Amino acid sequence: MGETQQKETADALADTLRSGRGEEAGMSPGTDSQPEATPAPVPRLRRPPPGTPAGIEYHELIRAPGVQPARVTCTDYCPERVEMQEVSDPAAFLAAHRPDWSKVRWIHVEGLQDHATIRALAEKYQLHPLAIEDTLDGQQRPKADDYQATESVPGRLFVVARRIRATESGTQAEQVAFFLGRNTLLSFQASPCPVMEEVRRRIASPRSRLRQNDVSFLLYALIDTMVDRFFPILEEISERLEDVEETVLLNPDREDLQTVHRIKRDLLLLRRVAWPMRELVSQLQREPHECLSTVTQTYFRDVYDHCVQVIDLIETYRDIASAVADTYVSLVANRTNDIMKVLTIIGTIFIPLTFIAGVYGMNMYIPENHWPYSYAVFWIVCVFVAGFMLRRFRRGGWL
Amino acid sequence: MGETQQKETADALADTLRSGRGEEAGMSPGTDSQPEATPAPVPRLRRPPPGTPAGIEYHELIRAPGVQPARVTCTDYCPERVEMQEVSDPAAFLAAHRPDWSKVRWIHVEGLQDHATIRALAEKYQLHPLAIEDTLDGQQRPKADDYQATESVPGRLFVVARRIRATESGTQAEQVAFFLGRNTLLSFQASPCPVMEEVRRRIASPRSRLRQNDVSFLLYALIDTMVDRFFPILEEISERLEDVEETVLLNPDREDLQTVHRIKRDLLLLRRVAWPMRELVSQLQREPHECLSTVTQTYFRDVYDHCVQVIDLIETYRDIASAVADTYVSLVANRTNDIMKVLTIIGTIFIPLTFIAGVYGMNMYIPENHWPYSYAVFWIVCVFVAGFMLRRFRRGGWL
Amino acid sequence: MGETQQKETADALADTLRSGRGEEAGMSPGTDSQPEATPAPVPRLRRPPPGTPAGIEYHELIRAPGVQPARVTCTDYCPERVEMQEVSDPAAFLAAHRPDWSKVRWIHVEGLQDHATIRALAEKYQLHPLAIEDTLDGQQRPKADDYQATESVPGRLFVVARRIRATESGTQAEQVAFFLGRNTLLSFQASPCPVMEEVRRRIASPRSRLRQNDVSFLLYALIDTMVDRFFPILEEISERLEDVEETVLLNPDREDLQTVHRIKRDLLLLRRVAWPMRELVSQLQREPHECLSTVTQTYFRDVYDHCVQVIDLIETYRDIASAVADTYVSLVANRTNDIMKVLTIIGTIFIPLTFIAGVYGMNMYIPENHWPYSYAVFWIVCVFVAGFMLRRFRRGGWL
Amino acid sequence: MGETQQKETADALADTLRSGRGEEAGMSPGTDSQPEATPAPVPRLRRPPPGTPAGIEYHELIRAPGVQPARVTCTDYCPERVEMQEVSDPAAFLAAHRPDWSKVRWIHVEGLQDHATIRALAEKYQLHPLAIEDTLDGQQRPKADDYQATESVPGRLFVVARRIRATESGTQAEQVAFFLGRNTLLSFQASPCPVMEEVRRRIASPRSRLRQNDVSFLLYALIDTMVDRFFPILEEISERLEDVEETVLLNPDREDLQTVHRIKRDLLLLRRVAWPMRELVSQLQREPHECLSTVTQTYFRDVYDHCVQVIDLIETYRDIASAVADTYVSLVANRTNDIMKVLTIIGTIFIPLTFIAGVYGMNMYIPENHWPYSYAVFWIVCVFVAGFMLRRFRRGGWL
Amino acid sequence: MGETQQKETADALADTLRSGRGEEAGMSPGTDSQPEATPAPVPRLRRPPPGTPAGIEYHELIRAPGVQPARVTCTDYCPERVEMQEVSDPAAFLAAHRPDWSKVRWIHVEGLQDHATIRALAEKYQLHPLAIEDTLDGQQRPKADDYQATESVPGRLFVVARRIRATESGTQAEQVAFFLGRNTLLSFQASPCPVMEEVRRRIASPRSRLRQNDVSFLLYALIDTMVDRFFPILEEISERLEDVEETVLLNPDREDLQTVHRIKRDLLLLRRVAWPMRELVSQLQREPHECLSTVTQTYFRDVYDHCVQVIDLIETYRDIASAVADTYVSLVANRTNDIMKVLTIIGTIFIPLTFIAGVYGMNMYIPENHWPYSYAVFWIVCVFVAGFMLRRFRRGGWL
Repeated sequence: MGETQQKETADALADTLRSGRGEEAGMSPGTDSQPEATPAPVPRLRRPPPGTPAGIEYHELIRAPGVQPARVTCTDYCPERVEMQEVSDPAAFLAAHRPDWSKVRWIHVEGLQDHATIRALAEKYQLHPLAIEDTLDGQQRPKADDYQATESVPGRLFVVARRIRATESGTQAEQVAFFLGRNTLLSFQASPCPVMEEVRRRIASPRSRLRQNDVSFLLYALIDTMVDRFFPILEEISERLEDVEETVLLNPDREDLQTVHRIKRDLLLLRRVAWPMRELVSQLQREPHECLSTVTQTYFRDVYDHCVQVIDLIETYRDIASAVADTYVSLVANRTNDIMKVLTIIGTIFIPLTFIAGVYGMNMYIPENHWPYSYAVFWIVCVFVAGFMLRRFRRGGWL
Repeated sequence: MGETQQKETADALADTLRSGRGEEAGMSPGTDSQPEATPAPVPRLRRPPPGTPAGIEYHELIRAPGVQPARVTCTDYCPERVEMQEVSDPAAFLAAHRPDWSKVRWIHVEGLQDHATIRALAEKYQLHPLAIEDTLDGQQRPKADDYQATESVPGRLFVVARRIRATESGTQAEQVAFFLGRNTLLSFQASPCPVMEEVRRRIASPRSRLRQNDVSFLLYALIDTMVDRFFPILEEISERLEDVEETVLLNPDREDLQTVHRIKRDLLLLRRVAWPMRELVSQLQREPHECLSTVTQTYFRDVYDHCVQVIDLIETYRDIASAVADTYVSLVANRTNDIMKVLTIIGTIFIPLTFIAGVYGMNMYIPENHWPYSYAVFWIVCVFVAGFMLRRFRRGGWL
Repeated sequence: MGETQQKETADALADTLRSGRGEEAGMSPGTDSQPEATPAPVPRLRRPPPGTPAGIEYHELIRAPGVQPARVTCTDYCPERVEMQEVSDPAAFLAAHRPDWSKVRWIHVEGLQDHATIRALAEKYQLHPLAIEDTLDGQQRPKADDYQATESVPGRLFVVARRIRATESGTQAEQVAFFLGRNTLLSFQASPCPVMEEVRRRIASPRSRLRQNDVSFLLYALIDTMVDRFFPILEEISERLEDVEETVLLNPDREDLQTVHRIKRDLLLLRRVAWPMRELVSQLQREPHECLSTVTQTYFRDVYDHCVQVIDLIETYRDIASAVADTYVSLVANRTNDIMKVLTIIGTIFIPLTFIAGVYGMNMYIPENHWPYSYAVFWIVCVFVAGFMLRRFRRGGWL
Repeated sequence: MGETQQKETADALADTLRSGRGEEAGMSPGTDSQPEATPAPVPRLRRPPPGTPAGIEYHELIRAPGVQPARVTCTDYCPERVEMQEVSDPAAFLAAHRPDWSKVRWIHVEGLQDHATIRALAEKYQLHPLAIEDTLDGQQRPKADDYQATESVPGRLFVVARRIRATESGTQAEQVAFFLGRNTLLSFQASPCPVMEEVRRRIASPRSRLRQNDVSFLLYALIDTMVDRFFPILEEISERLEDVEETVLLNPDREDLQTVHRIKRDLLLLRRVAWPMRELVSQLQREPHECLSTVTQTYFRDVYDHCVQVIDLIETYRDIASAVADTYVSLVANRTNDIMKVLTIIGTIFIPLTFIAGVYGMNMYIPENHWPYSYAVFWIVCVFVAGFMLRRFRRGGWL
Repeated sequence: MGETQQKETADALADTLRSGRGEEAGMSPGTDSQPEATPAPVPRLRRPPPGTPAGIEYHELIRAPGVQPARVTCTDYCPERVEMQEVSDPAAFLAAHRPDWSKVRWIHVEGLQDHATIRALAEKYQLHPLAIEDTLDGQQRPKADDYQATESVPGRLFVVARRIRATESGTQAEQVAFFLGRNTLLSFQASPCPVMEEVRRRIASPRSRLRQNDVSFLLYALIDTMVDRFFPILEEISERLEDVEETVLLNPDREDLQTVHRIKRDLLLLRRVAWPMRELVSQLQREPHECLSTVTQTYFRDVYDHCVQVIDLIETYRDIASAVADTYVSLVANRTNDIMKVLTIIGTIFIPLTFIAGVYGMNMYIPENHWPYSYAVFWIVCVFVAGFMLRRFRRGGWL
């Protein structure tokens, strides 16, 4: 009988230990909470070995065998008319003249492995080797470089932007490179992206403002769409932040801390993209350029406002995330201290009582042991001591 | 007898545990302290899906069925005369000429759902699609955009300001949009607001400075009133801060930490509104514009001073709130340590005594057990050991 | 006998508890350390309700009944002559012409409740309504506003400065407003202030540089005296800081933390006054103005140096105060840990010994209990175990 | 029998203590983990004693006896031709005319101890004493000093750059000094460096862009290669950072903290080099100079982008490293608290039970001791108390 | 026998307590570690009481009785000739004409108490009262004030610099004031200083660059020497920093924390001097002034580089010192936690065992007490429980 109960106590104890160990083991490889513990990867830049000359010359652009050809789409439009075509043979396409009615030509390339196509475009539009390198690199910070007109080459604005994308493995930023001429826009991208489709759909609509305006307005529309991508991602982060804030205030546990850290890491990534995007748009909005119309710059002012809002939100979320982390630490410390306090109080009450019991267990001659009511008196004393302690603790505000 | 007392001890113990649990449970759903634990909501921006074209064209402004018509108020005044009217039929009103004596016309629109009215105004005053979008958005940062005059459209200043309002569920910031022309001011707002009433009352008074001045002075008066709204809210925050500082220094408990966090969150919101308001007013005060008179700019300098004072107070309160949070953490740590210290001291004194009692409880032959006064000696030793320990602790400054 | 000793132990214990509670109670209302716990009040601005028009028009300046008349002092001087008078009837005084020999006229007003006097001055010198409002407000940040000359009103410089004053209830900053004309200086102040007396004494001395210079030099002298007020207050703070730093390093206790916090709060206030004073003086020193002579600007450069020194000291003291607070926290943590360590060591040594004693108190058949020297062996084992533990602890560097 | 088991317990205990001590000893000299504990050396500047005149005059450049002669390499090239030679007799070499076809002459000196050679070059090219001193110093911050042309000396640009190098004992930064003339580049370096070889190889290739351009493009190529050196080092740091972040989240131990500190120290060093490199390149890219061609400045824009990326990565890594350190501290605190909690729970459960057992060990008359089933009842009570405590703890969320 | 051992235990215990108290007492007055605990004094400015007029007029410069006369040294030189003399009678000396061959006259005054001498110089060279006051003050921040030429007084540059000096009681900064004219330099200093001797020695050498250049080059040489004084002091700080970093990583103790704090305080002082020195040199290098030659400004560029290096080192050392302090705190927390952990483990193992022993010490009828092998079984159970706990702890990674 005593044994089954003993077993029960032992089980409960073992549970305690197990849960303790389990919690600890939860931090070691092979347990379920593992996937959560994986941090966002540390951002890196992979670059050619030092000593490689900068810039990619046309002759270096050779299509590696087995590389899938890039998908090239050409869109010509003017207020009255629009024509979109998939270009299968870039060389032939570039050799042909553009239709007279076309006010704006937009050539969009998807896939940066197909160097032959890129070379054809680069030669036709005389792109600068440094700009080609940046286009193929895929890891540039958003920026706008002005390649001024020389006698042989017309002036161009080379713009690198980054599009934020929420993937399964976290938020990612993908580069899009633009070459803006007077009535041509080239855009280069590594993988398909819905932004382009959306803008193409808007071009297709004859009432669209895009159709009424020049090529720089097209660049504006694309960058505007890319900046707008931040908002749903920030929305999602704000929800995670609200959730974790609520959990922390109600019932803080260790996973919350990791969630906050993941949110902070995500915000760090967004920030690394948003700040240079803001600088880029600020430059496009502010500095006059032969390829940018006044109307476009007015509209870029609107994009700039969005960038400022994005950064404002990011910084606010960072502040809130830090505040949540601080609160977590204080609350957990408070809670552990509360636990320790109660436990220590229990222990402390019994320690003097145990001493008294020990005294009357001594084998020397103790007069009290021979009194008639000593056992009852003993219990009275115990209750009195314990009560005294409890009252002291309660008065002292320790309970 | 012993049992009732035993019960008392057990009750006290249970109380202890309960109060411990209660404190803990106070953090879980369903308890009274719940409403306090709810944090301020994380600020968000809700925006149209990416790819939506920016700007709202006139033809997109269609009154949704079932939407309540906006309340439009028109105020005309000159130094000698003033006339206010509620406009029930905007189209007819806008078709009519404005009276010759009217130096300043102020059209105020309350309710942004009624797109038909807004379209009528937008067409009459040729408002820019981007400005219309910002007006309807309601979540813009305070800013001033200059839409310069073209041959067909006169120049306009588009100003977005935010009004701080203390509501039951916390401080909120509401957007007001202004279109300032040479002698017309349009203002748009989502919901009724006392600011407008106050300014209208001042216009009604013939001795008012407002009546003597031009339309930009009206804009100044409105923005001034909006900035002044910060002061009572800051006053209220300063009271909460003083209260919590006092409580923390007297008797820090966990709710104080949450109060400080809520104050910090409120200040974060105020700051997000105050800084761009300051930039806005700074721009209005500093940069000459065809629609802003010199007198108005002198008065905007006064509003600018108020903005600087507001920000100065916000930053000071943030510093104080941080200092209070730091003090809280130090004081709670100190207090818990004090409790642990006293408890551990009690425990430590009895541990050696319990050991001694244990020794004389051993069943082997112990000579002392057979001495005549051993029991008295035992107690003398106990008191001596305890006294020695206590003196040591007191000398060491641990008590 | 045992009982008296028992009582002694109990008393010591009660003392311990009392002192523990006392320390805790020291933080609750009604104890002596209370006055120290009161924090500096949170700075506030009391402003008219939102919607009140800015600026105070002349007709609004009406002397409230029962208000004490302001004390107006007029000082006229030129290098050769000086005349000071208390003005009892401002209206008559202002109607009279100023003496021809007077190069500089300084009218100083003490008491801002007497609106009639202020109205008389405002009308005579055509003061701007906004400047009048700032003058009466008493809570302006230091600043210099230029009211440029118009055809009817000569140009004026309106300067608001703040004077630091150490009062019983902490450091306070009082506003002084100046209107600087070409040869007249008006100064307004709420309460009497020794700064004015000092400067008046210097004017009285014929060899004083003040007498040789124009009215802007008088403004310089007043502001210089106000900036110099910072130094004795900083001196006093540096002494408190040195004291608390010494105490913290010798014997950190909880009051030190509160002292450091009070010093930080005082520095926060000084900083709020010193930074705008520096901006003000920087502007006066740098920007040419028709009312400021070159000589005066050279002397303002000297005041600017003092402002920079003041701010340098404030920032240095803030750094030191933070360092002291950090050291306090580390030292207290160290000390508590040391206490806990020693106590736990004592406990730990006796726990195994108590176990051993418990073993030989078991009522089963234990062979050792029947050996002849078992008691002596028991003590040898105890001493050996305790010695072994102590040596281990000492080697491990834990003692 | 009992003794062997006792020994086993004692061994386990000793192990515990030893491992505790071992951990501690791991921090003292002579243990394996030592080499890891050595921090990166504190950066220092060794400079001549104060009072030494600045600048090194030609006559002070005397070859110390026993110093190895410097390795001087001269490369002449034009688009069509290239010639490289090791110069063994600098004096003779400098006396000879340079070939007519040479568009660019690059003289590279390795070894700064051979003052005779440096003197020969300094006299030939009339280098400024301050620039010579900086060249020999080896500890200058990256910078570009313009020594403007005078009637006798043509203008020169003196550029100091630093090359990052990963060595066994940590990352090191080595100085390279350049004197850029109109068609001559002198470069000085203390020790051999692969950067130079790489660029020389590129010059050898006739299709290289280097051969087509002027001498400033050569400077660009060298600095570009030096900036590119940052990337593999940052790559390696990012790997260490990812490793330590993973370890910290899985199984934080004390060495991780030291690893993070080493990474922070390395980043501190990189940052000290990268920021002035960025300023240097920014200046070279932005400010026109007679010795810098437009093409070169376009290419320096590319290097500038790399510098910005480098700094962006460094700052991001610093943020991540700080976050990892914070997480480490929170996790270790959490873990220790968990351990203490479980241990204290175990202790607390047994303390009341021990008290009960002590009660029934008292030698007074205790009725229960004479009941028939008291032993079974005792165990039932024990199990009940332990179970009650465990359930309480579990409900309170403490398990 | 038992008693001697008891005494040994008691002694060890007393030692423990004593060492604990000793450590504590080490923090109270009168112990050896005292001198180390004294913090660097809080920096102060002692200034005349507020209201004292700024500037010191010539007539205020009266030699106080009993003041030692200042040591005045005059150095005249041109490229060909140099003459140095100690001036015993300043009045006579100033009345005499300066030799025609003298291109540069440098009058150096040591001792600022001798106002008669200073008055003589001030009258001769018409020094401005504000500059005289700053010269005598001795606590000015480094700065350069331009006193422009008027019809009667030629333009002068008034420069205040500070020299860093390592004294027994810590680093000190001493003021040197310079008046730079077209071919005269006055320098004023409170106490003798080796800087001047060093420069005088360099002037004595005919090949020195100093001799070839004008008076502003002399100013450069003096300031350069003063800036160079920073390097040995920084060198010494870097050594202390390296030492303390090593100690902290090997064996952190409380004194390390104080050492780090002292280093931080020293760096704070250096920083307060270095930043304005940098601003001063930057101004001298950048802004053209009639008294500064182009050559001198080129050389000031070199001093500016040194200032930037000094500040770079100071900031780097501050970062390292903060990192060391952080590491200290984490390591000490870790160590204390380790100690507490091991101790608690020991306690926890014995608590259940003590309970079991207590059970079998109860005086009720316990069947096990009558079994034959119960004692052996008891020990087996004990060893098993202890072993089980230890294995659990080890598996859970707690050992």
